Amino acid sequence: MKLVTFVHDGKEAAGILSEDEKTVFDTGFGSMNDLIDACAEGEEGCVKAALAIEKGEAFAAADVDILSPIPRPKQDVICLGINYTDHATESASFNDDFALETKEKAIYFSKRVNLAPGHGMEIESHSDIEGQIDYEVELAVVIGKPARNVKREDAWDYIFGYTVLNDMSAREHQTGHKQWYFGKSMDDFTPIGPCIVTEDEFERPPKRRITSKVNGELRQDSTTDMLIHGVAEIIEDLTSGITLLPGTIIATGTPSGVGMGMDPPNFMEPGDVVTCEIEGIGILENKLK
Amino acid sequence: MKLVTFVHDGKEAAGILSEDEKTVFDTGFGSMNDLIDACAEGEEGCVKAALAIEKGEAFAAADVDILSPIPRPKQDVICLGINYTDHATESASFNDDFALETKEKAIYFSKRVNLAPGHGMEIESHSDIEGQIDYEVELAVVIGKPARNVKREDAWDYIFGYTVLNDMSAREHQTGHKQWYFGKSMDDFTPIGPCIVTEDEFERPPKRRITSKVNGELRQDSTTDMLIHGVAEIIEDLTSGITLLPGTIIATGTPSGVGMGMDPPNFMEPGDVVTCEIEGIGILENKLK
Repeated sequence: MKLVTFVHDGKEAAGILSEDEKTVFDTGFGSMNDLIDACAEGEEGCVKAALAIEKGEAFAAADVDILSPIPRPKQDVICLGINYTDHATESASFNDDFALETKEKAIYFSKRVNLAPGHGMEIESHSDIEGQIDYEVELAVVIGKPARNVKREDAWDYIFGYTVLNDMSAREHQTGHKQWYFGKSMDDFTPIGPCIVTEDEFERPPKRRITSKVNGELRQDSTTDMLIHGVAEIIEDLTSGITLLPGTIIATGTPSGVGMGMDPPNFMEPGDVVTCEIEGIGILENKLK
Repeated sequence: MKLVTFVHDGKEAAGILSEDEKTVFDTGFGSMNDLIDACAEGEEGCVKAALAIEKGEAFAAADVDILSPIPRPKQDVICLGINYTDHATESASFNDDFALETKEKAIYFSKRVNLAPGHGMEIESHSDIEGQIDYEVELAVVIGKPARNVKREDAWDYIFGYTVLNDMSAREHQTGHKQWYFGKSMDDFTPIGPCIVTEDEFERPPKRRITSKVNGELRQDSTTDMLIHGVAEIIEDLTSGITLLPGTIIATGTPSGVGMGMDPPNFMEPGDVVTCEIEGIGILENKLK
């Protein structure tokens, strides 16, 4: 099932997208976070609860505005750094700060997201303060119920669904400030969308083509099973010390092909269009203002 | 004015503490975040709006439970790393990962805080997965209205108030995962309290004694004007790219004297009591379970 956040008559709501993507059904929940919380409270699994949500009033998809499925994440987005082997190599060649000394432990950081741009929205470039604007297409996991001390074999039960996330990065800020937070958290730098696909529609682990393009030119092209630290392992690892609440978004890392990995590096400019896509979820395209 | 979050008859509310700290007045706001949002919406400054809040029903402080002033931060807490010169020296001696190569740019990272323990609460030690549990007393700034492109001379108008924050750190996780997020974000690892003091009661910049003790032994002892990157500079810097929303908490870094800086390093054990204090705000004491 594909879930979207949409606006009709100025009112925001969580909706279900029809198979042909031409119709949006209102779920009655005012936000995706409310819908996820309601699913988390049921005794059945979070995905089963989502699948049981009633299809309310129908709207033509063309007549509503589709936003990011979670426009205002309740907490910062948790991100994996250097989590595809090929991206590890290109990152180390760009800057020693990205060198992966050990593959034993995952690199976690976070992005502050006040408002996640959805598909089709123009995004702020921050070109006044940053000269190395980069893109990173990522598979994002949305947690569906409170998760602590979860074993990897049980991790799938805690996943509500998947979406596409563009981990836009200001490389000068990312490396200049040593910890990556500032360069990752700039306004508009976390487009998410176009929808959330519930976990039941994916293999375990997900094995889908993941690509990005800049102005139509293919830049990243991999599959989501090439992660160094897989989805279930990440959930086991994080929940050994942190309770992940429903609505938590985890961006699982990006494959090779980002601008900083090109020779010479090729960063984005205002006016450029970045198109992120994961097979089975959809396209997330944004233009830099 | 000192503001607290308290529970009376099972109901959580934001309250004003009397000067003698013996009485709590109910503000009518169900949470500190709601109170801060209301102050942000007024045309007057956020502090003036806070000062105008009516004192409602009075309770004896002894008859209510005082929680952390912001038990559930709306976004991750933004933290400064290595922001006192003396702490920079001891950190570099412990691990190269903490070496400060340049003082030009601040180090920002974040802490996920599902539930901030308040003064007097026992906190989870995570000693099953972490052998180097450490404390860091910090002055925390609470943002009072939406802040973007704020000049440092105007920064004070965006500050709602100050509180004490203990940036508890799992050093093995912090260094082993390269980026500090995981080792900083464990459940219970961000005690905040005992209250928020509105900005008008402080010098600009704040110059107050800041101390921590472990089992009564003085460990950290400095003043809050010894920051490498001061409060106003931090707000100017962050808001050049990120909109800071009302309720945002910024922990401004810790002075020397943490466990990892001792020779040999002296980490905390279950049963230990850590006491953080800032002159004019109060005491935040927690025992490790």
